[in-house]
Amino acid sequence: MQSLSVTLGERSYPIHIGAGLLDDARLYAPPAGTAKVAVVTNATVAPLYLERVTRALEQAGMARPVTILVEDGEKAKSWASLERVFDALLAAHCGRDSLIVALGGGVVGDLAGFAAAVYQRGIPFIQVPTTLLAQVDSSVGGKTAINHPRGKNMIGAFHQPLAVIADVGTLGTLPDRELRAGIAEVIKHGFILDLQFVGWLEANIGKLLARDRAALEHAVRRSCELKARVVAADERESGLRAILNFGHTFGHAIEAGMGYGEWLHGEAVASGMVMAAELSVRAGSLRQEDCDRVKALVARAGLPVQGPGLAVDRYLELMQGDKKAAGGRVRFILLEGLGHAVLRGDLETRLVREAIAAAVR
Amino acid sequence: MQSLSVTLGERSYPIHIGAGLLDDARLYAPPAGTAKVAVVTNATVAPLYLERVTRALEQAGMARPVTILVEDGEKAKSWASLERVFDALLAAHCGRDSLIVALGGGVVGDLAGFAAAVYQRGIPFIQVPTTLLAQVDSSVGGKTAINHPRGKNMIGAFHQPLAVIADVGTLGTLPDRELRAGIAEVIKHGFILDLQFVGWLEANIGKLLARDRAALEHAVRRSCELKARVVAADERESGLRAILNFGHTFGHAIEAGMGYGEWLHGEAVASGMVMAAELSVRAGSLRQEDCDRVKALVARAGLPVQGPGLAVDRYLELMQGDKKAAGGRVRFILLEGLGHAVLRGDLETRLVREAIAAAVR
Repeated sequence: MQSLSVTLGERSYPIHIGAGLLDDARLYAPPAGTAKVAVVTNATVAPLYLERVTRALEQAGMARPVTILVEDGEKAKSWASLERVFDALLAAHCGRDSLIVALGGGVVGDLAGFAAAVYQRGIPFIQVPTTLLAQVDSSVGGKTAINHPRGKNMIGAFHQPLAVIADVGTLGTLPDRELRAGIAEVIKHGFILDLQFVGWLEANIGKLLARDRAALEHAVRRSCELKARVVAADERESGLRAILNFGHTFGHAIEAGMGYGEWLHGEAVASGMVMAAELSVRAGSLRQEDCDRVKALVARAGLPVQGPGLAVDRYLELMQGDKKAAGGRVRFILLEGLGHAVLRGDLETRLVREAIAAAVR
Repeated sequence: MQSLSVTLGERSYPIHIGAGLLDDARLYAPPAGTAKVAVVTNATVAPLYLERVTRALEQAGMARPVTILVEDGEKAKSWASLERVFDALLAAHCGRDSLIVALGGGVVGDLAGFAAAVYQRGIPFIQVPTTLLAQVDSSVGGKTAINHPRGKNMIGAFHQPLAVIADVGTLGTLPDRELRAGIAEVIKHGFILDLQFVGWLEANIGKLLARDRAALEHAVRRSCELKARVVAADERESGLRAILNFGHTFGHAIEAGMGYGEWLHGEAVASGMVMAAELSVRAGSLRQEDCDRVKALVARAGLPVQGPGLAVDRYLELMQGDKKAAGGRVRFILLEGLGHAVLRGDLETRLVREAIAAAVR
């Protein structure tokens, strides 16, 4: 097991990474005085891991947890699911001295984390991510949210977990498509922050796809290290943290345009990263050969290098609602050389159109 | 005009108190880069004050604000209202660089504040309270929330405003019943924190009821000072801040038991304070003569000294869900002498029953 820290003063917390961690009672460590625990999960994850987590929580001294099942997939990030979580917490008489455990992928973590952020004005929660995407990205950094018909993650909160328990053993049961979607966020961390990690990924992408445990553990650890450093420097995304959204401005447009869940988040981000790289070339901040490296790694990961064939105008329209927009102007994360990213709000729409056109089907 | 400060590090903010402040453009001071302003208010307040606030915001350099009307009364603190606020913000393309202005009483402030807390993971807001209750209590301290059928303020956030603009001129249009409900929270501040202020209130209660402007301004200022001091010491209610809930454990039970809106919050708190004082006498921490002073001041303010005639068991059941409960045990704020309060979790149910029975119709 390896443990990292997200350094945020009194909100600092550990990320534990390793195989078999679900069963390790010490890692859950509920705060003193915790009266009740509720595990939020779904019908796909529960049969696989709920009993192990329940047993570990009991070993950690807690009474048998309340289990709250939410829908599977992106549609769980809705008002209706959130209300059901609150109904269940209240029905079980969970007070402020309760703890939520989010057991599942990014959707469960985002929903359960937001529920924890606002239930009785905030209770603590622990992230137990069971997908690669959640382990390398969404469980770290305290962003929680649900979707609105007009936009993804429009309603949410910054609410840091007490701990992240990333058991890479759970990646064994992950469908291939979801594994690849998680790899999209792993390689994103290389593109924006760590050229050396890009090299490691180019050399080891085959091992990751073959679920080599040591390779997965390294990829999770390095991703978490890189993300934790950015979050520690800019918890609430007033500046630097925006670079973690590389590929996401285009990616969110793809998800919204196709209907949430049609393209997996990681797939949308993958082709979004290609668009952002194409835009970086057109803005003069990335060499064509580095853009080609981006495309090649995305392709070798089995991820789409082209977005869906929506009209370019539709892409532009969908991006208008992006949360990074300022003064009505969409801002983009561009690569300034491979391994370095910047936020740019001064791009001509013509260049954005060209970049999209270069990377749609 | 008088200005106080709520001292909370980088979340510190001013409270401005005086007559005619609605029109003072300088007080709104939107953060640099603010692109849009949305004023959340209701159909009772809008005809009285919206135009003045709109004009002041325009003088402060903002484009004409988006107006969002919510229902009147406690029922506006609902999921449905919250969704309508989000729909309106998104329809107006309000981004993270938007500002919400909450114009109205406690309901508008709680709802609009919570909307600001979670819209795009948090945007700034300004409180412009137009009722006495909101000016002396709910607009100060950053507590925001909506209700759940199973309990008041069950879903919410701590989200501090950028400023509180308390124009005592607005109290002139307040219905008598709401004025008295606000006085309940004013005298609460005396009971728990300031014996001298209790004396001032005993001497000036007639002036307050007659809406003497100087008396109102003094009452608002002293209440805000007392509350600001408590909030600065314990922003997230991990200890001391709980004393501000004096009378509220009983009061919330009354509101829930009668159906929200039937008793005004301040009315329920008033008879709740009498119950809490009776309980303090039985717990040995308050003299009977001081309990009589509590009752007398509540009565002179035209507020109920007796709760509604629900069964004592029903009171106990309704209090079980209180957010201050710990380990399933309801905790009470008691007076330890007049002008001083403590949180107690060790009281025999027998005493609680007696205290309720002593103060119901």
